[in-house]
Amino acid sequence: MNYAKESLKKHYEWNGKIEIVSRVPVKTQTDLSIAYTPGVAEPCLAIQKDISKSYSLTRRSNTVAIITDGTAVLGLGDIGPEAAMPVMEGKSVLFKELGGVDAVPLCIRSHDVDDIVNTVRLLAGSFGGINLEDISAPRCFEIERRLKECCDIPIFHDDQHGTAIVTLAAVLNAVRLTGKKLNELSTVINGAGAAGIATARLLADSGMKNIILCDRRGAIWKDRGDLNAEKLKIAETTNPENRKGALADVLVKTDIFIGLSAPGCVTPVMVESMNKDPIVFPMSNPTPEIMPDLAKAGGAAVVGTGRSDFPNQINNALAFPGVLRGALDAKASGITEAMKIAAAKAIAGYVKDDELTADYILPSPLCREVAAYVAKAVAKAASFSV
Amino acid sequence: MNYAKESLKKHYEWNGKIEIVSRVPVKTQTDLSIAYTPGVAEPCLAIQKDISKSYSLTRRSNTVAIITDGTAVLGLGDIGPEAAMPVMEGKSVLFKELGGVDAVPLCIRSHDVDDIVNTVRLLAGSFGGINLEDISAPRCFEIERRLKECCDIPIFHDDQHGTAIVTLAAVLNAVRLTGKKLNELSTVINGAGAAGIATARLLADSGMKNIILCDRRGAIWKDRGDLNAEKLKIAETTNPENRKGALADVLVKTDIFIGLSAPGCVTPVMVESMNKDPIVFPMSNPTPEIMPDLAKAGGAAVVGTGRSDFPNQINNALAFPGVLRGALDAKASGITEAMKIAAAKAIAGYVKDDELTADYILPSPLCREVAAYVAKAVAKAASFSV
Repeated sequence: MNYAKESLKKHYEWNGKIEIVSRVPVKTQTDLSIAYTPGVAEPCLAIQKDISKSYSLTRRSNTVAIITDGTAVLGLGDIGPEAAMPVMEGKSVLFKELGGVDAVPLCIRSHDVDDIVNTVRLLAGSFGGINLEDISAPRCFEIERRLKECCDIPIFHDDQHGTAIVTLAAVLNAVRLTGKKLNELSTVINGAGAAGIATARLLADSGMKNIILCDRRGAIWKDRGDLNAEKLKIAETTNPENRKGALADVLVKTDIFIGLSAPGCVTPVMVESMNKDPIVFPMSNPTPEIMPDLAKAGGAAVVGTGRSDFPNQINNALAFPGVLRGALDAKASGITEAMKIAAAKAIAGYVKDDELTADYILPSPLCREVAAYVAKAVAKAASFSV
Repeated sequence: MNYAKESLKKHYEWNGKIEIVSRVPVKTQTDLSIAYTPGVAEPCLAIQKDISKSYSLTRRSNTVAIITDGTAVLGLGDIGPEAAMPVMEGKSVLFKELGGVDAVPLCIRSHDVDDIVNTVRLLAGSFGGINLEDISAPRCFEIERRLKECCDIPIFHDDQHGTAIVTLAAVLNAVRLTGKKLNELSTVINGAGAAGIATARLLADSGMKNIILCDRRGAIWKDRGDLNAEKLKIAETTNPENRKGALADVLVKTDIFIGLSAPGCVTPVMVESMNKDPIVFPMSNPTPEIMPDLAKAGGAAVVGTGRSDFPNQINNALAFPGVLRGALDAKASGITEAMKIAAAKAIAGYVKDDELTADYILPSPLCREVAAYVAKAVAKAASFSV
């Protein structure tokens, strides 16, 4: 099927992929007097007296905003807020269908960090959480950091943390399959954008010792001299041996490759240079860093990509519906590293020992049960950590 | 029934009066590839090329934002954004049930005009229209004026224009009933807040010559010396004889009383002082300026209030769902006086000659047919006037 053509046709037919519906009857005058005036004054006054009641008397406890400025949408780049909306509506559909979360897409007509932070800050009282989406680096880091400081609700940048969580889940199960030990493995992550940096951080926080992050110029090491603030920060906790060189150089004798970069930058020979039975996750979309058959020809024991037409799709949809669902359920004020690690472990743990194979390390992103499973683990972690 | 108690109980049960649902299937991998990645890139690119396509490829053409800062909610005053949400959700329910419009309530955590204007301006690309709600005067005037200047979508402040439209509709039918001539009648409006000023303006724009607006200090006339900018402006086009004095003084020998003020400020003796068969609309809520039986004792020929438990409820719900529906259908860039007058005439015209009585000048706010009727008239007026 030509997805592009079919999708355009269907989008014209649908005229919007989400809508708002009433949960209450308004057929009679009595209905109206209870759901609206004059009765509604009473829940209003109850919230005025105790703002936390907004979580029980309105939809706040089930509602998040999906916030973007349309600057880093899919592989399309800066297409603007209006053009980003079809993706955000799709995200909203997945939030509801998988996590039961009501997600309001809000596309902001500005690239300015202050504008985006202020808009979200001023709207935070209407939502139980914020999902930042497709905002280009490095602005996305500052926006997330500042929003965490000024908002009293969880802030989750899916491109960073959703990707990190689901990648960690894939790593956990690939390691479980190969019988290796997590803290003895060395990992190369290619791509030092929002997703790459967040993934490096979460892998380190979950106990992995030897992580080398690469950008277009090769390995990132402390004194490389050309690093921006974010790369400098991650250089502190990665690449402990200060290895230098191009991707092909540092990949030699490592165990795991994670690609969050660009098509075709990995060859079978490079995979061959890795340790025995390497784990290879070329996640560039739609064209991976190396195609799965070539990775296997190079000796890869487990291969996962971002695509649905190969085994082991490493897709954020496994993470974000359950993470926000769990954060809302726990009434968490933020999303901690412990909550993210709990989410990754839950996704990995959803695959039972007798199901786990090299071609099945992760459940399908459409599996209806995963989000509830993840939400439970996240809510539990929240109650310990927030 | 104790509406307050019942409403609080129901709001706890409901845990939110609205929710977001998917309009598309996402059961299979193919569904996902069409509604989301990779297919969704195509509608995104189509909008990037031509932003107007956002109206056909997303829900924008059916979606408005309900914007408030929670400063003038019902009769409760400044209760804050979180406490305003139950009213805004109720409004969203009515938008959908009556007008088929998807309305996203956004309660802003600021009273600052710049903050509110910027927030709405930055979000305007996600919506087909904006409904301002329960923002206190005089800030509401500046916010509406500035948003009209900087946004390319219709801006509708319901407290002003919804009230004005439905009041004009009530006046039109009361006049039709009594056989009087609209341009020969004199009208007193008590209450010079957002609703009073907008109603005076719309009545004047629809051909009424002699309108006297009163505030707490009595009649507003050009050189009274203590008028704010908005009152000064409306003084230019009202009170042509420059009548001075208290409400009781200027009400003498007039034909229509419209109350948008406070309970109990009109007595039967004051109604008696009006011309024969006066039209009396004491719309203060929940307690009118004069109770209907007392107004009738004073000789009122037609009485209408804001309440559902008396005949002739003059309720904004007759206006806003159809006005925004019509503006969206016409892809109007604004809401003109002609569109408002068309809405009022449509509401009035919905009551047929053989149905019209002193106790039935307006359809029920819950009548499912009115909004479509209003929308058609508004869309037609938009195509002539924008």
